[in-house]
Amino acid sequence: MNFTSKEQILADQIKKFKRDSGTHSPSNLTLLQYIPELSIKIDACFLSNPYATDLFLTYFEEEIIKAGKFRDLIEFYPSQNKVIARPLAQHLNINVDNIFIGNGAIEIIQAVLHQFVEGKTLLTIPTFSSYYEFAKPGIEIIYNHLNKEDNFRLNVEGFINKAIAEEAKSVIIINPNNPDGGYTSKTAIIHICESLKHLDNIIIDESFIHFAFEDDEYYIMSVANLINTYPNLVVIKSMSKDFGIAGLRAGYGVMAAEKVRKLLKNGYLWNSSGLAEYFFNLYVREDFNLDYETVRKEYIKTTTQFLLKLKKIPDLIVYPSKANFALVELKNDITSEEVYIKLLTAYGINVRDCNDKIGLDGEFLRIASRKDDENKVILNAFKEILKRKFSSTEIK
Amino acid sequence: MNFTSKEQILADQIKKFKRDSGTHSPSNLTLLQYIPELSIKIDACFLSNPYATDLFLTYFEEEIIKAGKFRDLIEFYPSQNKVIARPLAQHLNINVDNIFIGNGAIEIIQAVLHQFVEGKTLLTIPTFSSYYEFAKPGIEIIYNHLNKEDNFRLNVEGFINKAIAEEAKSVIIINPNNPDGGYTSKTAIIHICESLKHLDNIIIDESFIHFAFEDDEYYIMSVANLINTYPNLVVIKSMSKDFGIAGLRAGYGVMAAEKVRKLLKNGYLWNSSGLAEYFFNLYVREDFNLDYETVRKEYIKTTTQFLLKLKKIPDLIVYPSKANFALVELKNDITSEEVYIKLLTAYGINVRDCNDKIGLDGEFLRIASRKDDENKVILNAFKEILKRKFSSTEIK
Repeated sequence: MNFTSKEQILADQIKKFKRDSGTHSPSNLTLLQYIPELSIKIDACFLSNPYATDLFLTYFEEEIIKAGKFRDLIEFYPSQNKVIARPLAQHLNINVDNIFIGNGAIEIIQAVLHQFVEGKTLLTIPTFSSYYEFAKPGIEIIYNHLNKEDNFRLNVEGFINKAIAEEAKSVIIINPNNPDGGYTSKTAIIHICESLKHLDNIIIDESFIHFAFEDDEYYIMSVANLINTYPNLVVIKSMSKDFGIAGLRAGYGVMAAEKVRKLLKNGYLWNSSGLAEYFFNLYVREDFNLDYETVRKEYIKTTTQFLLKLKKIPDLIVYPSKANFALVELKNDITSEEVYIKLLTAYGINVRDCNDKIGLDGEFLRIASRKDDENKVILNAFKEILKRKFSSTEIK
Repeated sequence: MNFTSKEQILADQIKKFKRDSGTHSPSNLTLLQYIPELSIKIDACFLSNPYATDLFLTYFEEEIIKAGKFRDLIEFYPSQNKVIARPLAQHLNINVDNIFIGNGAIEIIQAVLHQFVEGKTLLTIPTFSSYYEFAKPGIEIIYNHLNKEDNFRLNVEGFINKAIAEEAKSVIIINPNNPDGGYTSKTAIIHICESLKHLDNIIIDESFIHFAFEDDEYYIMSVANLINTYPNLVVIKSMSKDFGIAGLRAGYGVMAAEKVRKLLKNGYLWNSSGLAEYFFNLYVREDFNLDYETVRKEYIKTTTQFLLKLKKIPDLIVYPSKANFALVELKNDITSEEVYIKLLTAYGINVRDCNDKIGLDGEFLRIASRKDDENKVILNAFKEILKRKFSSTEIK
């Protein structure tokens, strides 16, 4: 692949930076501090609805900044966990005793893994790496491989049979899955819950569920309010992606009341910020929700269009996704690293190079959908890059 | 004490609210949602430097709001723990491997208690209740009572001897202590560290240390950079109080590199928000720090004046404090609850009624210092209330 000498210098810095950064994408701020010459114009690494960020900021500007209420959010302690959970519970039609508010979903993943999971735990893979990285001693992670030959679809019966045969005590499914966006229907998830009633935990991460849909109404297909039917269910929900507010750190978990009680007894009383509390109170409001539903559906349509166009690019295999991103495989000896670096250095487009993801065999990138105009720039960049692929200059 | 009929109705609601709220002061937002008729004009329950809040907001307004950078803090993920720790480490002259960034000090208290503390643990009392409430099974808290007869001073030799005699594996000291503000000199803390080198943990909570001083230079008397000399030292630092930013949730812990590694391996990677990251990057800057030192010293002087005047009010015993608050005892059969309710309903002043604090024998309030003009209002309210104390109408 062709690199200008300037791009080549940046490429070397990026490779060094990636080696130093571990298994999680560093924040853009971190990357830009390390390589100030870089310019990120489009962040397609980041899995978030930009229309929802606009919406949140519109409300925030009006109700907080202009109304002079920002100081209160900064100066004073936010409310305790249970207080923030109460209106959310009403909105979700779930008992407040079943809701735990988290400082981002990641805090809930950590808390649940550390406090409630032990023994054999079946996890689909490839997946969000924290699910195995945060496993403390005493948890034995066993993997249920999703294969590219099956388009990364979860084989539901195979999964249930493996959980039973291995005598797993807990299972973990991300739905839609990250990094491929593969979606398992609500009916199938309920079938899993029904078949694995005897387990300690059925953990369903629904962080991308607002982007999934089963028909043209685009209903949100969460299983969270089945908590009474399946008390071993733990639903983990990030608000970062669908609401475009990753910087706020907001998430919630739905689980047995006994589990929520145990967490709150052990801490987690003031784990929300003033801004996160404002967000939760906003989220449950009817006016905001109507607006949110509009931008959610708009973004799903934008994403669907984007993925359709992405599929038409030669040398790319786009795997089926019902999330706001797609996993693409590069063919013809093109490496994910060279495309990642070319996109970043020549186009200012950041995507996720998946060459560190375990469970992926091949050259993969994860590409997020952004706003319509940004998606067009991404599509054009791919077309240009893959056209130029047979070049003599190669980066090592 | 005299209550108007309106105050009496509010008093009944407040009492019910307090019964429902548990051992921690609920946020003002929570209180006002419960009793919308209340109006809090001065929050002297809340232990925070209001001049520092002003300072933070000035920078934030200029550099973030006006510069159009607010969206970045909301939309994108903050940096990982280690990245935020790096400039802080340089500022504190402590190795970055010894620093853990927390979502408020409370997260660090929880993490340290859960991951590193077991067996007998000596804790001074009265104190911040999370230190015993968050103790998991396997920790046996033993109390080192601070007595009002000794002005709540820590008897350093007595504390060391008790730790040794009881074969404590960890000790916990808040310096200055909450709720009394009692300060133990840096020399004495070092003597404790030297004498208890063999323990698993010496936990020093320095959340109020920016308000303490030993001479007219008002140096900050932290022991955090003794971590190399005493590897069992764990220093916990809230930024909520001294920087007036409780809503942001920012704190840090200084501890052995091995402990930091263990925490980061188990989660806590993205536990800061975008705003907290901005704050930490601001805190270490020379320009901000110069301004901060000015408001810190100004506030210490304001507080010193306030406490001196508070001491002159009859029927109040003000215990010695080097924090930004004082513990006061009410004499002559006046209850803390009636004064607390009168201040809130008739003056809009919120203070901390300490009648639920274990280790306090008598009628105690904790009163925070605010800005100079607010402190004057607090002083006048106390004078008026205590003048009217012998009344026929009493609240039950």
